[in-house]
Amino acid sequence: MNAHILTIGDELLIGQVINTNQAFIAERLNSIGVDVACMSTVGDTMDAVLGALRTGWESSAVTVVTGGLGPTHDDITRNAVCTFFHTDLVPNEEVRRHIGELMKKRNLPTNAAAADQSLVPRSADVIPNPIGTAPGLRFSREGRIMFVLPGVPYEMKEMMDGSVIPFLAPLAAEQVIRHRTILTTGIAESFLAAQLGDLDQLLGGASLAFLPSPSGVRLRITVHGRTPSEADGTVREVEERIRSKVSRYIYGTDDEDLETVLGRMLAEKKLTIAVAESCTGGLIAHRLTNVPGSSAYFERGVVTYSDASKTGLLGVPEQTIGAHGAVSREAAESMALAVRTTARTDIGLSTTGIAGPAGGTPSKPVGTVWIGIADRAGTLALKFNFGEGRARVKERASQAALELVRRRLLNLE
Amino acid sequence: MNAHILTIGDELLIGQVINTNQAFIAERLNSIGVDVACMSTVGDTMDAVLGALRTGWESSAVTVVTGGLGPTHDDITRNAVCTFFHTDLVPNEEVRRHIGELMKKRNLPTNAAAADQSLVPRSADVIPNPIGTAPGLRFSREGRIMFVLPGVPYEMKEMMDGSVIPFLAPLAAEQVIRHRTILTTGIAESFLAAQLGDLDQLLGGASLAFLPSPSGVRLRITVHGRTPSEADGTVREVEERIRSKVSRYIYGTDDEDLETVLGRMLAEKKLTIAVAESCTGGLIAHRLTNVPGSSAYFERGVVTYSDASKTGLLGVPEQTIGAHGAVSREAAESMALAVRTTARTDIGLSTTGIAGPAGGTPSKPVGTVWIGIADRAGTLALKFNFGEGRARVKERASQAALELVRRRLLNLE
Repeated sequence: MNAHILTIGDELLIGQVINTNQAFIAERLNSIGVDVACMSTVGDTMDAVLGALRTGWESSAVTVVTGGLGPTHDDITRNAVCTFFHTDLVPNEEVRRHIGELMKKRNLPTNAAAADQSLVPRSADVIPNPIGTAPGLRFSREGRIMFVLPGVPYEMKEMMDGSVIPFLAPLAAEQVIRHRTILTTGIAESFLAAQLGDLDQLLGGASLAFLPSPSGVRLRITVHGRTPSEADGTVREVEERIRSKVSRYIYGTDDEDLETVLGRMLAEKKLTIAVAESCTGGLIAHRLTNVPGSSAYFERGVVTYSDASKTGLLGVPEQTIGAHGAVSREAAESMALAVRTTARTDIGLSTTGIAGPAGGTPSKPVGTVWIGIADRAGTLALKFNFGEGRARVKERASQAALELVRRRLLNLE
Repeated sequence: MNAHILTIGDELLIGQVINTNQAFIAERLNSIGVDVACMSTVGDTMDAVLGALRTGWESSAVTVVTGGLGPTHDDITRNAVCTFFHTDLVPNEEVRRHIGELMKKRNLPTNAAAADQSLVPRSADVIPNPIGTAPGLRFSREGRIMFVLPGVPYEMKEMMDGSVIPFLAPLAAEQVIRHRTILTTGIAESFLAAQLGDLDQLLGGASLAFLPSPSGVRLRITVHGRTPSEADGTVREVEERIRSKVSRYIYGTDDEDLETVLGRMLAEKKLTIAVAESCTGGLIAHRLTNVPGSSAYFERGVVTYSDASKTGLLGVPEQTIGAHGAVSREAAESMALAVRTTARTDIGLSTTGIAGPAGGTPSKPVGTVWIGIADRAGTLALKFNFGEGRARVKERASQAALELVRRRLLNLE
């Protein structure tokens, strides 16, 4: 079963917005064995949308369309699909009620633009939009299906996972594609490749992609099989062979992130953590608290950006900063120890460094970061250089700090 | 002058990689007056690539192709364009020399795969690739042009800015396209539309798009003109008319973010800020410290996730939390006041709420957030409901908190 993904919006054509919807939809379709043959993007004009609808519909069994379903004048997708399928708009009572409830929950009066969104093409089935006012649409004809979804990513994602995939999965179950991504951090791509050795021997028919990012290198295994159990078995074997070679660098798989993995470990071990951040500026606390249930182990964070706050909030001695500077082993160790003591947690974690672009010196260039950890076994700090680019330095430093805690919990060096 | 952007690669079709090349290329083409009419993406198979080359070439004066120029077996774009333009590969001495120099600089031996990259289609002009081994290609026929570039983003970007744009700009200088995006927050899309009133009157020939996100609604003005000054003038007029209607909700323009705008205001007014976060978990501190130079005004942040940390770090009275709960007006005001006092800053900002998915009650459902602010004029807290979805609640709460500071600084209610 082949699919065409059509994304609609002038904001995409002028390069204002990076198209993340395509990748999300493709990944989900792939997961149920639907191959994406083509993706296309057109602007908010009737001719362009009609032409693209025709191309998608004629070339693929499944067309997924996003964008242009909102309440304002530049949203023309609903009218375009009406024209394409020779149908007209009729009021839908269920959608109207849903919109009314949403507006009430948000303490907003129902206005005309919102009411207009309860008009639905006569020959379409409605795809519920649990978190927004624009309903999705599904058209089925002659063995082909078109799904029309809002372009707002979080609404689209809810509707893909809640309606589109459950609807398509039973129809698509003929070939099986399996992907498995192994997440590593703390090792560069070329060294990882060297440690993995001969790939043909490692893979035996599966394929492997190396995907580097500031958070680490992801290894993607892809297997095509005739049955789920055959494909899953091959994936498992390849994964085991990879793990046997580079396990120390692997912190998770697929969509996991390090904060989720670490959070699970802390919860299982009933350990608590507190964080004292300087150069990461709150990013570590933000990442830890992105995980639902993190209040069970995350006690507090402090973002001690000024020297006064390092002394006042944490009690880092002024002479430590005076003698060694705020970016030093001594400062990082003192911060980690102090936040652990005052928060009465099992673990104290700290960062202090130079995120740039200003503030670098020859002996402490931009990108220099000390990461400190204090736990029952003692206190230590490690020095890193994360290169240039403020956002990238923050991202890489937060990743290395979380990874330091993970390794410490596993007694990895 | 119209363009088609064609991106090639299986990694895009399976959703492993988000396509950032499209947006970059589109933005650059737009900047010199080239309209992008369509974007498409196909995988690494000869039929798909040939079909997509034909579609692009026939529909647009300019086609920009990226991907599939590398040295490995799955890179088929060079062969596809040879077939498409009925030409063959010939060795190119200049490219061969460049590859040799690059390999030497990296202390790598020149291997067969690299040497193969110095073969170039006979009827193409070479586009130099200063930082990689795969040369770009340019085909010109019957008033149409095709550029073929590597898919590696930093190589592609170098070649767009170094060769493609300088080549196209003089040919495209007939029409001028100008975009201007006005950033609003704190008002829903349909209400914004209602306040703007009759769009034809407002726009007078320009076009306007509404782009909603968790951070607010962006309004994008687009103007096509014959000269830069004509187009710029029209953009300015439309922007002024929009500002006269909804100025209170506008915090910035184009690529600015609220933390950058607010940081500039704080720096200009020589004011300092400290933040006490509960439900936003460090995100406000992270956003404020993303701005280069933020250490001039951001003094500290505390992430008081536990009740003990609210009392211990900030001195929020236990009886305040006992009587009103941690998610209350009283707690938010107490946190804002306390962090301002202990940090000795001009402004104290606080958040306390329920990010979910757990922790909601009938009277305080998930999404309930109190935002507190303390400054010279006094202390107050406002209640919001940001709906469901942990990441979205954090994002929307951080945006509303920063916006509260901005409005306070401008004496907006």
